[in-house]
Amino acid sequence: MEKTYIAGVLGAGRIGKIHIENIIYKIPNLKLKVVADINRDDKLEKWANDIGVPRLTKDPNELMLDPEINVVVIASPTNTHIKFIQEAAKAKKDIFCEKPIDTDLKRIKETLEIVKKEGVKLMIGFNRRFDRNFQRVREMVSSGQVGIPHIVKVTARDPAPPSIDYIKTSGGMLFDMTIHDWDMARFQVGSEIEEVYTKGAVLINPEIGKAGDIDTVVLILKFENGAIGMVDNSRQAVYGYDQRVEVFGSKGCAIADNETSNTVRLYTAEKIKEDNIPYFFLQRYMDSYTAELRYFIECLQNNREPSPNGDDGFQNVVIAIAAQKSYEENRPVKISEIVS
Amino acid sequence: MEKTYIAGVLGAGRIGKIHIENIIYKIPNLKLKVVADINRDDKLEKWANDIGVPRLTKDPNELMLDPEINVVVIASPTNTHIKFIQEAAKAKKDIFCEKPIDTDLKRIKETLEIVKKEGVKLMIGFNRRFDRNFQRVREMVSSGQVGIPHIVKVTARDPAPPSIDYIKTSGGMLFDMTIHDWDMARFQVGSEIEEVYTKGAVLINPEIGKAGDIDTVVLILKFENGAIGMVDNSRQAVYGYDQRVEVFGSKGCAIADNETSNTVRLYTAEKIKEDNIPYFFLQRYMDSYTAELRYFIECLQNNREPSPNGDDGFQNVVIAIAAQKSYEENRPVKISEIVS
Amino acid sequence: MEKTYIAGVLGAGRIGKIHIENIIYKIPNLKLKVVADINRDDKLEKWANDIGVPRLTKDPNELMLDPEINVVVIASPTNTHIKFIQEAAKAKKDIFCEKPIDTDLKRIKETLEIVKKEGVKLMIGFNRRFDRNFQRVREMVSSGQVGIPHIVKVTARDPAPPSIDYIKTSGGMLFDMTIHDWDMARFQVGSEIEEVYTKGAVLINPEIGKAGDIDTVVLILKFENGAIGMVDNSRQAVYGYDQRVEVFGSKGCAIADNETSNTVRLYTAEKIKEDNIPYFFLQRYMDSYTAELRYFIECLQNNREPSPNGDDGFQNVVIAIAAQKSYEENRPVKISEIVS
Amino acid sequence: MEKTYIAGVLGAGRIGKIHIENIIYKIPNLKLKVVADINRDDKLEKWANDIGVPRLTKDPNELMLDPEINVVVIASPTNTHIKFIQEAAKAKKDIFCEKPIDTDLKRIKETLEIVKKEGVKLMIGFNRRFDRNFQRVREMVSSGQVGIPHIVKVTARDPAPPSIDYIKTSGGMLFDMTIHDWDMARFQVGSEIEEVYTKGAVLINPEIGKAGDIDTVVLILKFENGAIGMVDNSRQAVYGYDQRVEVFGSKGCAIADNETSNTVRLYTAEKIKEDNIPYFFLQRYMDSYTAELRYFIECLQNNREPSPNGDDGFQNVVIAIAAQKSYEENRPVKISEIVS
Repeated sequence: MEKTYIAGVLGAGRIGKIHIENIIYKIPNLKLKVVADINRDDKLEKWANDIGVPRLTKDPNELMLDPEINVVVIASPTNTHIKFIQEAAKAKKDIFCEKPIDTDLKRIKETLEIVKKEGVKLMIGFNRRFDRNFQRVREMVSSGQVGIPHIVKVTARDPAPPSIDYIKTSGGMLFDMTIHDWDMARFQVGSEIEEVYTKGAVLINPEIGKAGDIDTVVLILKFENGAIGMVDNSRQAVYGYDQRVEVFGSKGCAIADNETSNTVRLYTAEKIKEDNIPYFFLQRYMDSYTAELRYFIECLQNNREPSPNGDDGFQNVVIAIAAQKSYEENRPVKISEIVS
Repeated sequence: MEKTYIAGVLGAGRIGKIHIENIIYKIPNLKLKVVADINRDDKLEKWANDIGVPRLTKDPNELMLDPEINVVVIASPTNTHIKFIQEAAKAKKDIFCEKPIDTDLKRIKETLEIVKKEGVKLMIGFNRRFDRNFQRVREMVSSGQVGIPHIVKVTARDPAPPSIDYIKTSGGMLFDMTIHDWDMARFQVGSEIEEVYTKGAVLINPEIGKAGDIDTVVLILKFENGAIGMVDNSRQAVYGYDQRVEVFGSKGCAIADNETSNTVRLYTAEKIKEDNIPYFFLQRYMDSYTAELRYFIECLQNNREPSPNGDDGFQNVVIAIAAQKSYEENRPVKISEIVS
Repeated sequence: MEKTYIAGVLGAGRIGKIHIENIIYKIPNLKLKVVADINRDDKLEKWANDIGVPRLTKDPNELMLDPEINVVVIASPTNTHIKFIQEAAKAKKDIFCEKPIDTDLKRIKETLEIVKKEGVKLMIGFNRRFDRNFQRVREMVSSGQVGIPHIVKVTARDPAPPSIDYIKTSGGMLFDMTIHDWDMARFQVGSEIEEVYTKGAVLINPEIGKAGDIDTVVLILKFENGAIGMVDNSRQAVYGYDQRVEVFGSKGCAIADNETSNTVRLYTAEKIKEDNIPYFFLQRYMDSYTAELRYFIECLQNNREPSPNGDDGFQNVVIAIAAQKSYEENRPVKISEIVS
Repeated sequence: MEKTYIAGVLGAGRIGKIHIENIIYKIPNLKLKVVADINRDDKLEKWANDIGVPRLTKDPNELMLDPEINVVVIASPTNTHIKFIQEAAKAKKDIFCEKPIDTDLKRIKETLEIVKKEGVKLMIGFNRRFDRNFQRVREMVSSGQVGIPHIVKVTARDPAPPSIDYIKTSGGMLFDMTIHDWDMARFQVGSEIEEVYTKGAVLINPEIGKAGDIDTVVLILKFENGAIGMVDNSRQAVYGYDQRVEVFGSKGCAIADNETSNTVRLYTAEKIKEDNIPYFFLQRYMDSYTAELRYFIECLQNNREPSPNGDDGFQNVVIAIAAQKSYEENRPVKISEIVS
């Protein structure tokens, strides 16, 4: 029979709530025991109660010190990830942590060494790898239907920019948004990036520029296996959450188009019209959050290394640093300039 | 604040389980208290326990006699619907009942009179009306974007025929399968059918013919408002569960195509390929089961007559009888020949 | 080397001009010698001169009596078809004639006998059989990719009704418009129709009803091989010239959607928009007119019976008569009631 | 009344033949008088005769010295363009010249000055600007429906690489193939490129690399108005001639997908299948060759400067030189490094 795991969740913000719901409703072999959130208030209390959270606390140590809890899901702010991963690892708990691990390569490295030493499993939440469309593309690539990948293209555009306050603390568009896209490119191609060129611009809102960030960016990625990647991002696609992937290779081309809101087309005297693609990332990617956590539990049950793991988390931050440097210096930057 | 209801469910077969899951997980204002199923066994017991059913019984009277329970969901075999509706109505409970109410017009009429007399609400589970695509078409029609409806087309094809045993007790293809489609046509057009012509055939499996049924059928429907309907059904579409609706009118045409499994297209030297449409009705219509029950609770909360209601259930059986007669006599049959 | 033919064309109206252009520009093995049109005027003279018509006359006998001319293309009004076919056949010329041959079965029969006796070839211009999309469907059906055909569906809707004057002399919607659609159904299924049921209505313009005609019609066709056909027609689809075909069978389903004006989709904050399908039948079917005439010449070169031939022309009129009777009597009509 | 022009054509190779056919059959106001081709042989003689070329010569001077000829269409090899443009200009003839003008900026400049001095019109044959899909995108951009352009993407992939012999004399992939794509990007954005970054690779055939060329290339273009362009090219898309354009802006996104061979989809037990996109550039772009020449004649009739003109031809070569430099030095290259 399949082993059941006992979970504690750190952080009950937007993403934390998704994981909590998934654990309660959708993942039979993962039982929720405690949720810890420093911002516990009446509203959160009510939400937790309604949905059936067994216990809500402000104290993360309740999880860390509970010997029955063997899985920790980290959905707290980025600057707490390192601390919680290390503590959970030392407490011999398997860890699912939201992306990014951190923004400092040295701290990430130390943390991954602790994870390794303690022998626990660590998965990083690059949930888009579990989107059914992008997974289907990957299956076509890995089964050879596309042949040897030559060009991989990732388009990711948000419907509206975040607040200027958010942007100021986000680490920048490349660390905050584009990090998903080179992870997607790496996932699809199955090879590591060795060079990156970034071209960024402020085209949507000058305030974003004043805050030291960009709102539009395109990248060219060079992979070790020879493939070339292209990414384009915008903070504002007025028509919705535009998410597409294309892998072109020696035997063909797999293209994942946007999901649609419904399948209805209206033919009128003026135009043929369809409803917009989903506007919000939760509409598009909800199922992928469930799928990634299910997969993590399967990895634990079968003692398999999960993917994306800590090394992927590290590598994606390395690329972010290279991409940022490329943008600032307007030149292609080799990954070997960042880590050797 | 919104009122919360207490539910009892009769029947925990395939559809019953769907309603139970939806009540537990997805409908906050409907709390499950008891499930009654005459076939309670260890397997069902385990399923009920895992999913969190508070109490499982063999005895429907536990529901009927429990004054706290104010909503009864009937998902038991068709030949028990009449009995349970009458009992629940007399116990002053609001009722959600799976289609069809019954196959006998007189019994249905008596039952609807009891429902009316007792002043409870009755909704019939024609779930496809709650499919997001067909609802979107209806919105376009009712908001006038299509103009006056001239032609409505419903295509519904199952991926594989049911067993011959099932067919023998199903009441026939028209009562079992096509009933959904004239309900859909009535829903889209917003008018009643006054005449029906049926052309049926046995093209898939001669055993179906030997069992007295057909496996392929097309119909022309004449509506009171002048619109014309077309339905085509097959028991076997090898490529999946083919479900489409089209409303053509004076100002345009709204077409709901099949839902897709994913959005990926593979371009190869040989062909462009896409994955098939969903194969099973639960994949396609799962969300519609949740939506219909949610809508029913909203009707109760706002003291609104639900739709489709008992009259719709009655009318759809009337049409089935007319359609069957048309098939047998190979001539258009007026609804007024069946009821006047 | 391929034999070259010398053509005379009767009638230089809308369709005649298309054939003339095709012969001059697109059919290398068919050389135009004379065009005869009773309405020769300055405007037509100029058109003929500009496009390179070698000789324009009012007198059809110039063609009939010219021994060099071995192909006659008849694009004159319907009521002249019989006369011209007979004359051309007796002059031993091969004949391409626009549909319909005539509306009188006896006259058609006599004419076909003359054609047969004189040993010339006769092709009737059901050009839609040569549309690339519908031909592709037929290839899929005839190569067995769809399996045994169960249901064939033809949708044909005009963008706007013709003038009331035209309608009065058109022979009625079934003879004028729907005749193309059962020809298409016969072409796709590869079997003859044995019964037809027609449901017609006046939904667009009451003046059409006053003129004794209908503007909206649906039909169910029963084929000898067991397949069932469905046709829906409207005189007014405000969004363009809606032309679709679907063949559903034991192994799959081939669907030919409308041709598009261009492939551009515009994603906006409000909707996703596409340009309408072509509005006019010439835009949609121009290539099919070229293809049918090319195919006719190939038949002559290889001494093959063309298809659709005179028998198809006859059969399509038989069905028109049955369909009309079915509409008038509101009952399915067997083809054997019309011809035995 | 519209003025009619008299044309001479230089070169009757693949593209020359297209222009000749278009002039004879499709452009009423342009009359063909002479075709000059140094390779006149029996085969060409026969082709010219069949299609109705009035006179075929080996001597270009027959055109240049004929005072009646006022339009010269240059479709001869690239290395003759400069010479013929200059001669035609001096003979006061308006000129349509195939792309590219030349590969040497100084020679192009001198030639354009002669054209200017002589006061004749010069159009360069970047025919893709006249493709109905890409023109529709441009209309959407120029009418403001897309808002301010932020990102323009051009995908162009050939079905199969040319011969190694061709590659050796082609001037390289960037001059031969990609030149169309930055012209398309310039056309869509309506602004000039100020910087280009090129990443090329040999992924299809090592022989192409040995010949000093690449077979896969992606570029990032920076426009003066702030927009960013992305181009991806491959010499071998096994599924056909892949040609797509996307313009993303502040108000929306216009996407031109590939043209399809037909509209038929086959639903089978295994997959949904469509026929491939057209394999050959002539299938895709034939209409655009007609449209560009028609437009040129309209420019002459209305005394308007044609577009793309000589300056566009010059600019596209400047970008080619910058793109080549960028590829060789693996760094973004400013256009101002090439011309100032």
